[in-house]
Amino acid sequence: MRYELYYWPSIQGRGEFVRLALEDAGAEYVDVARRPARARQGVPEVIRLLNGESVACPPFAPPFLRIHGAKDLIAQTANILLFLGPRLGLVPKREASRLWAHQLQLTIADWVDDVHDAHHPIAGALYYEEQKREAKRRAAHFTDQRLPKYLGYFEKIAVRNPGWNGGLVGRATSYVDLSLFQMIAGLRYAFPRAMARLEPKYPRLVALHDKVSVRPRIAAYLSSPRRIAFNRHGVFRHYPELDS
Amino acid sequence: MRYELYYWPSIQGRGEFVRLALEDAGAEYVDVARRPARARQGVPEVIRLLNGESVACPPFAPPFLRIHGAKDLIAQTANILLFLGPRLGLVPKREASRLWAHQLQLTIADWVDDVHDAHHPIAGALYYEEQKREAKRRAAHFTDQRLPKYLGYFEKIAVRNPGWNGGLVGRATSYVDLSLFQMIAGLRYAFPRAMARLEPKYPRLVALHDKVSVRPRIAAYLSSPRRIAFNRHGVFRHYPELDS
Repeated sequence: MRYELYYWPSIQGRGEFVRLALEDAGAEYVDVARRPARARQGVPEVIRLLNGESVACPPFAPPFLRIHGAKDLIAQTANILLFLGPRLGLVPKREASRLWAHQLQLTIADWVDDVHDAHHPIAGALYYEEQKREAKRRAAHFTDQRLPKYLGYFEKIAVRNPGWNGGLVGRATSYVDLSLFQMIAGLRYAFPRAMARLEPKYPRLVALHDKVSVRPRIAAYLSSPRRIAFNRHGVFRHYPELDS
Repeated sequence: MRYELYYWPSIQGRGEFVRLALEDAGAEYVDVARRPARARQGVPEVIRLLNGESVACPPFAPPFLRIHGAKDLIAQTANILLFLGPRLGLVPKREASRLWAHQLQLTIADWVDDVHDAHHPIAGALYYEEQKREAKRRAAHFTDQRLPKYLGYFEKIAVRNPGWNGGLVGRATSYVDLSLFQMIAGLRYAFPRAMARLEPKYPRLVALHDKVSVRPRIAAYLSSPRRIAFNRHGVFRHYPELDS
């Protein structure tokens, strides 16, 4: 089984949650937009599938996934992980556990939206500099209220997991843990001062981050050129003036 | 099978997408927070399940659902509909079709977030009046760019549905259609001028709205006291100054 991931080639962004699952599972995949723009690869192929008139079920936006040779495209980050989870062995088998993992992933998706809108509160189509004043106001609310609320929620989930072994769902590592790792890593990059202040209150989330970061395939991925560095084009952006 | 829906009692909000599915299917359900606050009903019961220390898998926020007598709570609107869809006969049976319906529902969830943030661009915890200036700026971008983008996307999906019979997924009505109906109804309430200008470009979405509105159980629901009126506390709010 070979997977094709379609996402922007120069950012971690929402595609990173899918990359982490594929990497951790050792899945065979092509990061299509990072290939040269020929033979149905590169960014033009992402655009073609988004806008092409012959695509039966077009996505609204990247990331999206296809099994090599298949027709269907699967979009929406959490939906891609819902599909991949059982296939990559990254979620328990029971329907109730799969729905629970998906529910947590959707809450992470809301959190990602909040992180994004902290630097883009008016419109994604405008530059940060065009909404800097509003961003300062929104980011202050984010670091004061929303960030502790999300961290506190997931710490609570970790504490109440009866199978706590370093992960949020059951005893084994799930795709939700990989995504939570990414949240902590991204937040440390974007809001180092806020995170330094908050982190001591959430020891299980810090332990989860550390445990994921040393999983052999994740550690290999993070030190490889496949891991794009954090930058000021993705979801997690470091603007010192937004980090109260 | 009796369902218990937990959502705020005075708004349509995100809970309405679940109410519409339950109503259309003629499912037996209790809208828990709208019952008197005794015997584990009313708003205190919603709060207890959100904050109670004995809840194994607590939701981050309402809406959430429980099968009467069961232990598990299911939260996140799109996840609830993913669970209910097959049980209520509101989604095709194939896995690919269920993922496709869910993908569309997640795109509707993003659209709902955009609608909400048009009047609350800085923080949900602040009053509208405290972020009115920023809301004017964000709402202008919403009505000019985001709203046509979402409407155009779903019109395209309707046009490309090979089984088009008034719905987005296959030939039969799905929960996605009920949610799309709610979007059109809510947007007409919140942005009557923008919608009057835009609607002629999206004839299939208008036809879908009209078809859903006369489904017998939906029509009965909409004219019943169970349908809460649109108001200035929910997701869809009419502020004339935001409707360019």
